[in-house]
Amino acid sequence: EWIIPESHPRRESLLEREKLVEGMCDGVVVPQGLIAHGRGECFDYLLGETSIPPALEAERAAAAMFHLAKHPVISVNGNVAVLAAREVVELSEATGALIEVNLFYRTRERAKAIADLLYAHGARQVLGVDDATARIPGLDSMRGLVSPNGIYKADYVLLGIEDGDRTEALVRIGKTVAAIDLNPLSRTSLAASIPIVDHIKRALTNIKRYYESMSREEASRVINSFNPRKVIADTLLYIRNRLETLARQLMYDYR
Amino acid sequence: EWIIPESHPRRESLLEREKLVEGMCDGVVVPQGLIAHGRGECFDYLLGETSIPPALEAERAAAAMFHLAKHPVISVNGNVAVLAAREVVELSEATGALIEVNLFYRTRERAKAIADLLYAHGARQVLGVDDATARIPGLDSMRGLVSPNGIYKADYVLLGIEDGDRTEALVRIGKTVAAIDLNPLSRTSLAASIPIVDHIKRALTNIKRYYESMSREEASRVINSFNPRKVIADTLLYIRNRLETLARQLMYDYR
Repeated sequence: EWIIPESHPRRESLLEREKLVEGMCDGVVVPQGLIAHGRGECFDYLLGETSIPPALEAERAAAAMFHLAKHPVISVNGNVAVLAAREVVELSEATGALIEVNLFYRTRERAKAIADLLYAHGARQVLGVDDATARIPGLDSMRGLVSPNGIYKADYVLLGIEDGDRTEALVRIGKTVAAIDLNPLSRTSLAASIPIVDHIKRALTNIKRYYESMSREEASRVINSFNPRKVIADTLLYIRNRLETLARQLMYDYR
Repeated sequence: EWIIPESHPRRESLLEREKLVEGMCDGVVVPQGLIAHGRGECFDYLLGETSIPPALEAERAAAAMFHLAKHPVISVNGNVAVLAAREVVELSEATGALIEVNLFYRTRERAKAIADLLYAHGARQVLGVDDATARIPGLDSMRGLVSPNGIYKADYVLLGIEDGDRTEALVRIGKTVAAIDLNPLSRTSLAASIPIVDHIKRALTNIKRYYESMSREEASRVINSFNPRKVIADTLLYIRNRLETLARQLMYDYR
């Protein structure tokens, strides 16, 4: 419908917005997902729209956990599916992790629409549509429903753009949780075993790359030296420095 | 339709999102308003979701201007109406300022829907629906239309979540503009006579409180010593320091 010039400096970002609006029309994304995306855009701008060093460190740890976990699951919601269906499927293929649809605003139709999008990108199996019959303790009604063969049984869950309550609930029952979230101060980032402050697409691509070039021995070493608090702290310091630079530039321009 | 659990720690923020989504369904908010809200959420996180000292200083100045202005107007768009209709009406009642609907994506239907929302919250008069016949120079077509008895005649305009072009145009024709915007680096914040980096609802509540406890003499003193550049600089320093403190705490907790 809209035409974005090839040369537009924010073309990628604008195309992503269009995909989310389309996703809303197709019933894959809820309108709240647009707001979440707007917030993500702002944090990504603060990062410089790049995978910063602490994000790469976390992505390496997330990759290592795929080597060490017995039953890894990639949890997918509407925003993740719209922004990175291909990357989810590719990471699942590379690591052997299961894919499960997991929704904050769950309806059978949305779960199905998201699964269909994943199947269209080559997924062989998607849990969480008609088999979300087990329950995560500490979460209300529909919000706690998961597949008994997927997240319920998982020792490791990789999730993205997720609500804090649910991330905390998963950690509380002993799962190792890697969480991709552009907000370093969100409850999801602060609760996660492995907080990945990066764009979902960049993060999934990097995790796959790290996974493929890592031995099991290296994976153990990476996990043993990983410190989620340090990753968050380094991210905040990075943003602080960048904000100071941006502020100086802008104040200078306006003088 | 959706039910947010009473116990969810981010219930307020989630309810606000739902109000915006409803606002979109009712034609009060445009989809772009959802993304703008998401960006605001990001900056509010950086502030700690509280009215920081430089914001309070700007709110006191905005209150002072209501004492000193001859023809103050509160400019309202879709996001402002959805997030703070009650606070707009209360501030208007307290100060005697007129209320005008002013839209970036103007249609008569949207202007009417916003006015109706304000009337439902007790507004006695809302300009800018059928009387937007005057024009602000330097703005395209529909974007420059205002009421001849409202913004056109105003010596002081309080606005929120506004486009940079329009804020700049109002300042250029000599209006004193107080602008509520969570992004301290937006063109609106940088152009405003009184930049208020705060949530719209907190800001309007604080301005009313300051207004009611201030004499005309005090108002003059407040305005004479107010410096918008200093407020922006202090806000940036506040965010920078907050990120550094948070980072240090996280590091310390780990050690």
